[in-house]
Amino acid sequence: MGGEVIYEGKAKKLVTTEDEGVLIQLFKDEATAFNGEKFAVFEGKGAINNAISCHLLELLEAEGVKTHYLGKVDALRMRVRRLEIIPLEVVVRNVAAGSLAKRIGWEEGTPLPRPIVETYYKKDELGDPMLAPTHVAMLGLVEPARWARIEASALEVNRILQARWAEAGLTLVDFKLEYGVTADGEVVLGDEISPDTSRLWDAETGARMDKDVFRRDLADLVETYTEVLGRLGLDE
Amino acid sequence: MGGEVIYEGKAKKLVTTEDEGVLIQLFKDEATAFNGEKFAVFEGKGAINNAISCHLLELLEAEGVKTHYLGKVDALRMRVRRLEIIPLEVVVRNVAAGSLAKRIGWEEGTPLPRPIVETYYKKDELGDPMLAPTHVAMLGLVEPARWARIEASALEVNRILQARWAEAGLTLVDFKLEYGVTADGEVVLGDEISPDTSRLWDAETGARMDKDVFRRDLADLVETYTEVLGRLGLDE
Repeated sequence: MGGEVIYEGKAKKLVTTEDEGVLIQLFKDEATAFNGEKFAVFEGKGAINNAISCHLLELLEAEGVKTHYLGKVDALRMRVRRLEIIPLEVVVRNVAAGSLAKRIGWEEGTPLPRPIVETYYKKDELGDPMLAPTHVAMLGLVEPARWARIEASALEVNRILQARWAEAGLTLVDFKLEYGVTADGEVVLGDEISPDTSRLWDAETGARMDKDVFRRDLADLVETYTEVLGRLGLDE
Repeated sequence: MGGEVIYEGKAKKLVTTEDEGVLIQLFKDEATAFNGEKFAVFEGKGAINNAISCHLLELLEAEGVKTHYLGKVDALRMRVRRLEIIPLEVVVRNVAAGSLAKRIGWEEGTPLPRPIVETYYKKDELGDPMLAPTHVAMLGLVEPARWARIEASALEVNRILQARWAEAGLTLVDFKLEYGVTADGEVVLGDEISPDTSRLWDAETGARMDKDVFRRDLADLVETYTEVLGRLGLDE
């Protein structure tokens, strides 16, 4: 029983276990950007992202945030609760960067007056377009009451992660979350939290310490991610 | 006194009068599409759009909607209240078409389960990007309480216009509104309501009876708009 790959994406796969409600989330060394146009393999990335994700999901659980995290298995794998993933990228932003900077015409690096939560439709064939809450409701992706709870959760996650990244000397510019529904109908945080899914800038120099080093060819990805791991004190 | 052009856009200009709070809105024969990439002059378009806009703004006023409309002057001109325009395109949609159909991957012509209101940032240099309410608040374009009133107004305008266009044998697919603030701080509907700013489909055949005939080279624009004018009973 178990061992069936039920999802394989750019950076991770999900494998069944003997327990129907439990999956193994395995981190891969591959990276893609620009909706798959750019592709590379970075030896060591999977282990770093697994270590960082385990650490941050543990921290969130300790702070009372419901997540899919059940425990670290080994260098590349964590145990997670099985979720029906809501096909939304929930993006929290503290500083203007990336598509937001382009959309509203603010210079990258401009601090936002307060954190904002955006939603993008997880549909590769549509290019993951931004949605407003009215579209989310119309598409039946999340009921409005449930969406209010997810938005509140995302802002709470932001408060916790901002503080943790600040301890590591990093500014949490923005990051992407995914939520899903358990077999008992509970909405919990799923996916990963890593430099693949977060924009992290050195608090002193503003240097990019995240997947933008790959997107924009700024520095060696594994060196950069290893530095992030070290700053979190996870490079024992 | 008066006679100063304070705004000149693609399809209209605004001219001051002796009364500081009153402007003349003059309709032009020019049309542009795709953010100015496509351009043409259609003799007669200005007069048709002025006639239709006067008629529909009068109807909305009669139904209790606050607008900038003060009265028709002549074939090309209406008198309007001077507004500080809020730089938002407020789009109401009843049927999937145009950018919404592309964004969410629904076939053009799919009826929406209920009308939705979208906001686009009026900034040519940014390509008029869609905004979510969180961006509208963050950019300080409209305070949240005022936005709630604008959204309710836009849906009320939709109810009134849908019924009027249905009498003319046309389906109101979607349309764009602009709101502004008077010198006394009142938020009122501004701009125009015409086949330039609305998608109107023949209720029987689905034929496009609006500016899409120009955008997509489907039919003669002035013939089409003249037909719309006639269906509203305005071609006396």
